[in-house]
Amino acid sequence: MKAAIIAVGTELLMGKVTNTNAVYLSSVLNELGVSVLYHITVGDNPRRLEEAVQSYFKEVDMIITTGGLGPTQDDLTKEILSKAMGVPLSMDKGLEVDLESFFSGLGRVMTPNNRKQAMRPEGSLVLHNSMGTAPGFIIDKDGKIAVMMPGPPREVIPMTETGLIPFIKERSPEKITTVWVRVFGMGESAVEDKLDDLVTAQSNPTIATYVKDGSIAIRITANGINEEENLKLIQPMIDEVKLRLGHVIYSLIDETLECCVADLLLKNNISFSLAESCTGGLLAAKLVGISGISSVFDRGYVTYSNEAKHEELGVLNETLTEFGAVSPETAKEMVEGLREKNKSRLCVGITGIAGPNGGTEDKPVGLVYISVYLDDRLEVYKHQFHGDRTRVRNTSANYALDHIRRMIEENISKNTVDSAS
Amino acid sequence: MKAAIIAVGTELLMGKVTNTNAVYLSSVLNELGVSVLYHITVGDNPRRLEEAVQSYFKEVDMIITTGGLGPTQDDLTKEILSKAMGVPLSMDKGLEVDLESFFSGLGRVMTPNNRKQAMRPEGSLVLHNSMGTAPGFIIDKDGKIAVMMPGPPREVIPMTETGLIPFIKERSPEKITTVWVRVFGMGESAVEDKLDDLVTAQSNPTIATYVKDGSIAIRITANGINEEENLKLIQPMIDEVKLRLGHVIYSLIDETLECCVADLLLKNNISFSLAESCTGGLLAAKLVGISGISSVFDRGYVTYSNEAKHEELGVLNETLTEFGAVSPETAKEMVEGLREKNKSRLCVGITGIAGPNGGTEDKPVGLVYISVYLDDRLEVYKHQFHGDRTRVRNTSANYALDHIRRMIEENISKNTVDSAS
Repeated sequence: MKAAIIAVGTELLMGKVTNTNAVYLSSVLNELGVSVLYHITVGDNPRRLEEAVQSYFKEVDMIITTGGLGPTQDDLTKEILSKAMGVPLSMDKGLEVDLESFFSGLGRVMTPNNRKQAMRPEGSLVLHNSMGTAPGFIIDKDGKIAVMMPGPPREVIPMTETGLIPFIKERSPEKITTVWVRVFGMGESAVEDKLDDLVTAQSNPTIATYVKDGSIAIRITANGINEEENLKLIQPMIDEVKLRLGHVIYSLIDETLECCVADLLLKNNISFSLAESCTGGLLAAKLVGISGISSVFDRGYVTYSNEAKHEELGVLNETLTEFGAVSPETAKEMVEGLREKNKSRLCVGITGIAGPNGGTEDKPVGLVYISVYLDDRLEVYKHQFHGDRTRVRNTSANYALDHIRRMIEENISKNTVDSAS
Repeated sequence: MKAAIIAVGTELLMGKVTNTNAVYLSSVLNELGVSVLYHITVGDNPRRLEEAVQSYFKEVDMIITTGGLGPTQDDLTKEILSKAMGVPLSMDKGLEVDLESFFSGLGRVMTPNNRKQAMRPEGSLVLHNSMGTAPGFIIDKDGKIAVMMPGPPREVIPMTETGLIPFIKERSPEKITTVWVRVFGMGESAVEDKLDDLVTAQSNPTIATYVKDGSIAIRITANGINEEENLKLIQPMIDEVKLRLGHVIYSLIDETLECCVADLLLKNNISFSLAESCTGGLLAAKLVGISGISSVFDRGYVTYSNEAKHEELGVLNETLTEFGAVSPETAKEMVEGLREKNKSRLCVGITGIAGPNGGTEDKPVGLVYISVYLDDRLEVYKHQFHGDRTRVRNTSANYALDHIRRMIEENISKNTVDSAS
């Protein structure tokens, strides 16, 4: 099957929003064996959208649109695609009730223009929108498929997972199985270099690398009669990748680094406390993003000022004066203070220079110390990160997560050896 | 002038790389008064690229391509665009010398296939590539302009700044001026309703609403001979929008809510401390994202457990037992505790149920209390948010920012009245 993805929205052509839906949907479609031939972006302009739909349907079987399903006058995607597919629109009572209850749940009265979002192309499949007001639709008619989704990625992603993917899977005769290998702490080109011959020689399974959520994701996909047979094809490739990449692999499921770490903390019942300076709560925020973390997360401190480091964590004023707030000594005392105060099994401290100001020749922007105190082992890691303030802060939080992961894993394997001996 | 941007590269259609060139170039072009009508992505497929060039040149004056200028057999962008413009390619001795010195600078010998990058469309303007081997070109002929640039953003950006922007400025008689009005706390459709007749009647300036960074952005753009005249056209529209939307407008420049709040804190020298439960450091992380905030940010607490709320903030155990961690009473004591401990002028507390678990009938998922204590005024705000854990947490942090903004603004206007009376 061949597809084109059309994004609708003048804001994309104004250069104010990056079209991340195209990259997300392309990766999903490729995994399902659908070839994406084009990405197109048009503004909120009915004629141009209509021409694009007609023109690209000559070459592809499926057109997926994102955007233009909202309540405003500009939102005409549904009208245009329904017309192109020869399907009339009519008011759907069920969708209307859903919309009304969405608004009343927000404590708002639904304005009349919102009602148009309940208009449904006749005979279409409804894609439920768990994150917003505009439902999506799939019209499957005469060998052509028109998929309409809203614009915001946080609406597109769940709608794709719960609606579009099952729809495509059901239509395809083959079973597709994908395993993801997630990597942190090695650049994409270094990973590609190590896997180069595997990528060149790929047939079934196929293998490809992606950058996802600030780390590398390696996709291994097999086509076959069922999942069991596919996994037999995939396993030797996983083994080979593990052999070549080693400890930079953090997970064999498609999860973020923070998910992986939260899982380790929860499974091993490791209570933890955090002390953050340059990351300013980012590490805590990443971990609190995982539901259920409350059972092991004791507390966090954003000790941005020297006074806070001293008063909250007991970092000595002499240490701050002699070595500075960004130093291995301060990082060490931050976690010692955390341990003393909260008795958590895991204490993590981050102090660094996020920039753009505050750097010196000795301590340049991007210098970050991460201290990790797990049970009786305390390590201080020095990093020199690059990029702007946002990047330095985000990379710091991610490396802290990776240090936590590795120390827990080393701890587990050490304890396993200890108890075996 | 009207433009289309065509990205060339199968990796984009595989979902491996996000097309950030399109958003960057579009923002540059819009600022220069060039309307971007389309973004298109095609793979390394000569026929599809050729058809796209021919098709879109019917509607636009300028096509900008990114990618496909490299040394491999797949790289055919230059050949196809030169053919479309009716211009032959010939070897450029100067470019050949540049290429050779680039390779010798890297300590490498130039391979024969690299020589193709020195082929130049006759009569074209060369865009020097300071970051890579492939130069860009501009063919300007018979009222059509073809701009060819390489794929990597780090090559595209300097090439645009030093080559494309000066070229367009020299050609354009018009000046475009845009002012953004930023809104928080009102949905996009409600904003649209209030501005409906302005949008319908727009000519010069034009007006449109967008969703950006979790809030609404209203764009007002005028075309004219210079910025001063454009601003005279824009000002009455700004005044009208202010009249209709009132306090939900947080800024008249294109900035995030956290930038606006950080600016208010810094300008008014308001020291602050934060206590976060369900947001888990997200509010702190947003504010620490702004460089310079260290001069007013004292510290933050992520008091996720009841013990932390009691021990760090002095929330009474009786309060936690009687009213629960998610209650106006706890929210109030969180900021009273912060004030007592740190003496910051502004203390903010957030406690709520982010979900997906932990909700009850009385206290459903999404129930959040935000307490703000500014100087001698303490307010506790109750919210019922919707969406998943990430959204509830993010919305909570954003509403906290908005409450801070409004209280500071009310404080300033009260003090102004006080000192005037």
